[in-house]
Amino acid sequence: MFKQILENIVENTPGAVGAILMGFDGIAIEQHVSEGDDVDLQLVAIEYSNVVKEIRNTAEILGTGELQEVSVKTGRYYVIIQTVTPDYFVALTLERKGNFGKGRYLLMRDTPRLRESLA
Amino acid sequence: MFKQILENIVENTPGAVGAILMGFDGIAIEQHVSEGDDVDLQLVAIEYSNVVKEIRNTAEILGTGELQEVSVKTGRYYVIIQTVTPDYFVALTLERKGNFGKGRYLLMRDTPRLRESLA
Repeated sequence: MFKQILENIVENTPGAVGAILMGFDGIAIEQHVSEGDDVDLQLVAIEYSNVVKEIRNTAEILGTGELQEVSVKTGRYYVIIQTVTPDYFVALTLERKGNFGKGRYLLMRDTPRLRESLA
Repeated sequence: MFKQILENIVENTPGAVGAILMGFDGIAIEQHVSEGDDVDLQLVAIEYSNVVKEIRNTAEILGTGELQEVSVKTGRYYVIIQTVTPDYFVALTLERKGNFGKGRYLLMRDTPRLRESLA
């Protein structure tokens, strides 16, 4: 059912490359990659799991409340990350011409469903 | 003139706490804090400069193009970061009830002006 949720997010977000549900330990539970894309989503997510851990520590040090969402814009991609539980996060990668707002909305909408499925 | 640009961003973004122009080495050039806020913007920016460096390295490793923007949502704040030059970034901190979209727009709009002023 993780697969279905991720697939739904990717297929309904114009320009989405893929989505992955992953532990902060860098081990993926499930992923869905859009047809025709050859992005190594696993590699992207592992790299970003370090980033998210760093941001989580930062938020803790600063006492600014728990980390909920991170988004990153680079020359080629958008990456949107939502914390699902203290141990897991979901990351959506989009092309720069993709619909960032819709991807962010779907990810936000479905994070509680992923959380329930993990429980 | 850095001061003026930062002040303009903060005062025109509802819910903005402050904006800071800072080197990736953690040394601030200029900042503007909204009246009545006691957030240690310098501390926030120093902590986030480490995060941004980590993300920049990640983008480099993954070959996903240069880092342009990072936004972070925690329980209490939004932090929006734009890369200004390879050595400097600007960070805007907003309360959670603040206008994220407007802050992001103003930051994006004025980043070229900050870049020109740094040259």
